[in-house]
Amino acid sequence: MTQAIDISRSSSQPRQDGRGERIGVAVVGLGGAVATTAIAGIEMIKAGKNDRTGLPLAEFAVQGMADYRDLVFSGWDVNGDDLATAAEKHGVLDRDSLQAGGRALRGIRPMQAVGSSAFCKNVDGENKFNARGHREAVERIADDIARFKRDSGVDRVVMVNLASTERYPDMAATALQSLKAFEKGLDESDAAIGPAMLYAYAAIKSGTPYANFSPSVSADAKPLIEMAHERNVAVAGKDGKTGQTFMKTVIAPALRQRSLHVDGWFSTNILGNRDGLALDDPNSLQSKVGTKKSVLDQMLGYKVEDHIIDIRYYRPRGDDKEAWDNIDITGFMGQRMQIKVNFLCKDSILAAPLAIEIARCLGLADRRGQGGVQEQMGVFFKAPMMSNGHDPVHAFHSQQDILLDWMGVGEGSEA
Amino acid sequence: MTQAIDISRSSSQPRQDGRGERIGVAVVGLGGAVATTAIAGIEMIKAGKNDRTGLPLAEFAVQGMADYRDLVFSGWDVNGDDLATAAEKHGVLDRDSLQAGGRALRGIRPMQAVGSSAFCKNVDGENKFNARGHREAVERIADDIARFKRDSGVDRVVMVNLASTERYPDMAATALQSLKAFEKGLDESDAAIGPAMLYAYAAIKSGTPYANFSPSVSADAKPLIEMAHERNVAVAGKDGKTGQTFMKTVIAPALRQRSLHVDGWFSTNILGNRDGLALDDPNSLQSKVGTKKSVLDQMLGYKVEDHIIDIRYYRPRGDDKEAWDNIDITGFMGQRMQIKVNFLCKDSILAAPLAIEIARCLGLADRRGQGGVQEQMGVFFKAPMMSNGHDPVHAFHSQQDILLDWMGVGEGSEA
Amino acid sequence: MTQAIDISRSSSQPRQDGRGERIGVAVVGLGGAVATTAIAGIEMIKAGKNDRTGLPLAEFAVQGMADYRDLVFSGWDVNGDDLATAAEKHGVLDRDSLQAGGRALRGIRPMQAVGSSAFCKNVDGENKFNARGHREAVERIADDIARFKRDSGVDRVVMVNLASTERYPDMAATALQSLKAFEKGLDESDAAIGPAMLYAYAAIKSGTPYANFSPSVSADAKPLIEMAHERNVAVAGKDGKTGQTFMKTVIAPALRQRSLHVDGWFSTNILGNRDGLALDDPNSLQSKVGTKKSVLDQMLGYKVEDHIIDIRYYRPRGDDKEAWDNIDITGFMGQRMQIKVNFLCKDSILAAPLAIEIARCLGLADRRGQGGVQEQMGVFFKAPMMSNGHDPVHAFHSQQDILLDWMGVGEGSEA
Amino acid sequence: MTQAIDISRSSSQPRQDGRGERIGVAVVGLGGAVATTAIAGIEMIKAGKNDRTGLPLAEFAVQGMADYRDLVFSGWDVNGDDLATAAEKHGVLDRDSLQAGGRALRGIRPMQAVGSSAFCKNVDGENKFNARGHREAVERIADDIARFKRDSGVDRVVMVNLASTERYPDMAATALQSLKAFEKGLDESDAAIGPAMLYAYAAIKSGTPYANFSPSVSADAKPLIEMAHERNVAVAGKDGKTGQTFMKTVIAPALRQRSLHVDGWFSTNILGNRDGLALDDPNSLQSKVGTKKSVLDQMLGYKVEDHIIDIRYYRPRGDDKEAWDNIDITGFMGQRMQIKVNFLCKDSILAAPLAIEIARCLGLADRRGQGGVQEQMGVFFKAPMMSNGHDPVHAFHSQQDILLDWMGVGEGSEA
Repeated sequence: MTQAIDISRSSSQPRQDGRGERIGVAVVGLGGAVATTAIAGIEMIKAGKNDRTGLPLAEFAVQGMADYRDLVFSGWDVNGDDLATAAEKHGVLDRDSLQAGGRALRGIRPMQAVGSSAFCKNVDGENKFNARGHREAVERIADDIARFKRDSGVDRVVMVNLASTERYPDMAATALQSLKAFEKGLDESDAAIGPAMLYAYAAIKSGTPYANFSPSVSADAKPLIEMAHERNVAVAGKDGKTGQTFMKTVIAPALRQRSLHVDGWFSTNILGNRDGLALDDPNSLQSKVGTKKSVLDQMLGYKVEDHIIDIRYYRPRGDDKEAWDNIDITGFMGQRMQIKVNFLCKDSILAAPLAIEIARCLGLADRRGQGGVQEQMGVFFKAPMMSNGHDPVHAFHSQQDILLDWMGVGEGSEA
Repeated sequence: MTQAIDISRSSSQPRQDGRGERIGVAVVGLGGAVATTAIAGIEMIKAGKNDRTGLPLAEFAVQGMADYRDLVFSGWDVNGDDLATAAEKHGVLDRDSLQAGGRALRGIRPMQAVGSSAFCKNVDGENKFNARGHREAVERIADDIARFKRDSGVDRVVMVNLASTERYPDMAATALQSLKAFEKGLDESDAAIGPAMLYAYAAIKSGTPYANFSPSVSADAKPLIEMAHERNVAVAGKDGKTGQTFMKTVIAPALRQRSLHVDGWFSTNILGNRDGLALDDPNSLQSKVGTKKSVLDQMLGYKVEDHIIDIRYYRPRGDDKEAWDNIDITGFMGQRMQIKVNFLCKDSILAAPLAIEIARCLGLADRRGQGGVQEQMGVFFKAPMMSNGHDPVHAFHSQQDILLDWMGVGEGSEA
Repeated sequence: MTQAIDISRSSSQPRQDGRGERIGVAVVGLGGAVATTAIAGIEMIKAGKNDRTGLPLAEFAVQGMADYRDLVFSGWDVNGDDLATAAEKHGVLDRDSLQAGGRALRGIRPMQAVGSSAFCKNVDGENKFNARGHREAVERIADDIARFKRDSGVDRVVMVNLASTERYPDMAATALQSLKAFEKGLDESDAAIGPAMLYAYAAIKSGTPYANFSPSVSADAKPLIEMAHERNVAVAGKDGKTGQTFMKTVIAPALRQRSLHVDGWFSTNILGNRDGLALDDPNSLQSKVGTKKSVLDQMLGYKVEDHIIDIRYYRPRGDDKEAWDNIDITGFMGQRMQIKVNFLCKDSILAAPLAIEIARCLGLADRRGQGGVQEQMGVFFKAPMMSNGHDPVHAFHSQQDILLDWMGVGEGSEA
Repeated sequence: MTQAIDISRSSSQPRQDGRGERIGVAVVGLGGAVATTAIAGIEMIKAGKNDRTGLPLAEFAVQGMADYRDLVFSGWDVNGDDLATAAEKHGVLDRDSLQAGGRALRGIRPMQAVGSSAFCKNVDGENKFNARGHREAVERIADDIARFKRDSGVDRVVMVNLASTERYPDMAATALQSLKAFEKGLDESDAAIGPAMLYAYAAIKSGTPYANFSPSVSADAKPLIEMAHERNVAVAGKDGKTGQTFMKTVIAPALRQRSLHVDGWFSTNILGNRDGLALDDPNSLQSKVGTKKSVLDQMLGYKVEDHIIDIRYYRPRGDDKEAWDNIDITGFMGQRMQIKVNFLCKDSILAAPLAIEIARCLGLADRRGQGGVQEQMGVFFKAPMMSNGHDPVHAFHSQQDILLDWMGVGEGSEA
């Protein structure tokens, strides 16, 4: 089987029109708001109906990086609706966008997912594959990847996890201590291994670069990092850095540079989409808050005792997530000040372009033969995966510099 | 006369205790809230009663840069109150700080100022020198500098303008077109030359490094830049970047990096201190809004048509300036979002440490023999002075990198 | 002529279906965002496609008050577009509403207006009647009213001024001191008499109840109040109380009742619709700020020195007006607190239902034979017109009580 | 024993100086921030150093109501510090106030409290009376009341519970179903009966009017209401309406009167004082959120599904509680708007004057012989106690009208 699914190393012919290669993006959570927004956006770009506003890397021309028009999507979802129907339910896209991207979306229907209501309580559906165990599940996923590559004729497939947050697993479980133990855990369908890990395993095993946009534990589990390095498969994650945490990593470094001491940082969020519903389950919430909280102390260089993050499922706003931050700072002469930031954002509108850029970066890394943890992609994530004991960089501008350097467009070329 | 006032080039003996040289800071606007806060803070540091919170460069050890404890202050103000009395009126410092810094403050009384109610309508006082003309005024200022240096025994004097905003001068006036015309204008007491320019001229002429923390036109007038380069005297400015503009230069670059398009940026400010009163005069307001507005377009790379800045004198808050910003942005698929930032700051608490660091940087530049426009000090200013047609850098993190590199503590050494 | 235009006293037959009489609403500024929204809303109610959310009096059944479905609209505008076209430009209504209300709107085209670019600089158009003088203008308006009544077959016509703000007139002008002087001013086309006054005069003269939703001086000019009382014609105004001032009159009375002292109240507004453009002219702005400022002191019982109101034309938001208020209060033991209110409203969505209720109330007053200043309608206005030297009531809940009492649905009946 | 503690009915001689009677205020939680602020404030009023800002009833002269200068304080606290020491720790009062009120505060030391760490986990102390059971506890409290009255020579004693929030009791417990069962529960030291109920019982039993400013269950337990009516003792509560809920009851009625539909109301609070710490225990939090949530639906007339209230213990701010509310509303034509209210308040500064007015109202009710639930005092409370199945009134202005009517200063007299 291993051979059968080792699909992404095939040589690809350079395209005649000067554009790069075509990339297939296999999405976990294909019917979600982020995925459908990303796909609609790409379709509209293909149709010339969407400028590239919101796509962070749009202004850079990088040798070997796939063009937006050369992305092709497939993936899995517990909800089997075609993507036009799914997008309409999410209410993110306006009627014009739905109409423009609709034809393409209508033609895409998610493959059966390997969901687990044990791991993500509030989001479930009927479009599930009933595997007899973990082994069968990962084989199924690998087959899906291979078929997608074959059918679409793309040069390369990458996988991006855009699914809702799973509950935090028992990280001390034996199965999560080494690749060997994990393989045994797969054979025994060990309960410590959640769906996100199954997808990541199938990807890495089949040589498919993998990025985790969700806060769930997946490629960041020790055994999977191990495998990614062994097989030289690019992995990145986790938890897309969209609104509140993005702002936090913009503002906190500046406060430090001005020697303004952060006494406390209170962050609250209200959101009413499917991801919010998932987080209404305290177990999933723990995963999310965990990745959001790790950020601050590293950037400031000291521990902020009163760093509080609340996330509340609040339906009136749907996908229009809102964040309110209050920052208490102390300045010169011990005098105190406050900064409040109120971000009225659209969750999927911020997330979708990041998911797209992540897929392109994974493709570039793979093409360059760079496997293992892609530290330079940290700018996209709340909890950047690092390797070899590196400390993560969280400061937004530093992360951006690192990414642009890797892309070959830093400083000098940027002008 | 020229020789008499060329005071700052005298050789200074290295101090035996390993600390750097002593710097005399000659302040225009010595009785103001920023100056008294800065002086009280330094006195408390000398007394071991103030940590270095809020001082942006406190954590860096730089060869040749004066220690905070080696700063000595003098200066001019239209208000002749001793600084303890002045500080009490400003209401910035709490009772403990006033008590701690009080003895030193009580001993300092501003020298007579060369004010002009024609240039700054709402802030005036009795402590003024009645010069018969511009020439006598600049000679008096130069004498004051020389006496300060002599009496205090410092190694070097620098001048910092912390005075309230003057009205915007007629930049097309003949006197402001060349150094030669300016000298003629001094002889004729030309009305186009305002007080801030007289101080800057006296400083540069006498070889005293000069920085302009106010938004008034001074060393950035063409003739004075010319003279600063000719005489190799360090000049920097202008308009200290404290609260709202600081945040603007932190947030805007990040929006650009995420390709989020700024459709409009509305900034409003309320403040009730003496600077606010000065700005209640529409002519002074024009100077201030001018420097605040220049910032945005350069950072974003396109013109934001709806960039509005309001500043309102609002007494209830005194020195506790408050800024409210509303940012309208467009993201992926043309969808719109909003960010609102509400900064409850203390104007002088943010400004005073910058003024202190500016003095130290001027001292270092002078010691290194670096004259002319100090572009690397741009991080301290809303409207950074540049030379040779350079475009200003406004993005806060880039400015910080530039400054640290100059100090010799960038990247490598920072770690 | 007088007889010919005394139209509204004609007897009306009670309707057989138990509903009240039909009212014709003659709107000054018919093509504006408020008017088109009001008309679309009423058309959708007629079509059963709009519930009565936002209509303040919807839950009260009052004998003799016209049903929403019995309102018929006509009016004047400098812009001659049919109302569907106008509404589309304003961008207030979503596509569904435009479609639903569109057929009716498309059939309505504004009559030629008596505009004056001298009085409202930034809003102008081609659909204007070139009267040879004031006299001809008012006769033309009166004819228009009469024709509207005749053609529509309504039982009663009322006039509502929904036009953009005019500049503040010279209130000391002779023509504005008495009805006699005003009549003379009409004969001489006195420049002190602005368009809003011409409409109000024509209405009152022809026995048509009149309400002024704009901040312009009209029926509140001394001569017109005099005439309204003489002829027993209902007049009300002025300046619709929609967002920020509405909140102000809700919150301020409560602060007083808790004995919390208001030290300052800073209000800023950003809006990007046609009304905002009109206010971009400083002369019009003066009218608006004037009516907004009068509110606070009366409610609190003392003068708030630092009551600042800013209004800024800011295009990105269109009709989505936003208000930000900062209130500084002092409580027990002299301690200070702050309240900030940020209202993201839709100007026309708040205004349109008030305009509708105003028309219904005018109709009811007229039917009851109640002429002169309608003080009980103060709840709808920022600067309620009073008569006989009465002080205006501004506290929202008190105003509401007064209106409901007049309607006969206060306390007892409300339950 | 009953006789011994029936202390408050003694006849009081009218004072010769025209002022009313003297009232002893027995406070549960005497060392807390609210109590010490109230006492310091009253002492400063006695000393002529405090105007009456923040005292809601200060401007009304009511026959028979005690003057502020005629209040005398005593009470219980688990913390035995004298009140000057306690106040200093709370950090609410500035140095001047502490100095001014300090002498009086220093002389007051709380009596031993009947605390229970089982009911209020995070706030505990050493100053506790170790009763052998509930019976002994209530007798001790009654003795304390009697001794306070005797020693102070006041005309009347009232009790106000200002203690931190207790956990929510098991309301279905047998002991809470009737007075008889409660008495049995006291004999058996039933765990369902918490400390707040013991204080309330002792008060009512001894004829002492009682008000509950805390959210804990006390006089609102069925058995105690029963007893209050039987013995004709005034009781009122519960949970002082200070900041966020106060604003909610000001704004929500106005939204209803404008027919603006509330789709959701998200309220979050951050506070860092002792009450906040108490609420960091989820069981206490439940009590608090319970009283805060009951408010909205009644005022609006429909159920708001998305009414969320968060309270977070956040130390940097101490007593400077901050509330942020986001209100989603739908207006005309189904269009949506948002209101955000950010209240930077000082918890004790808002609460203390209410506690004072509550004591004065209890005194007046008692003097008038009005026992049982004091519905007219609802304006002071988040969850107003009602009797006879009355629905509570929450709208602030209506509550205020009701109170003023009862005081005899409504409408007519107010003018």
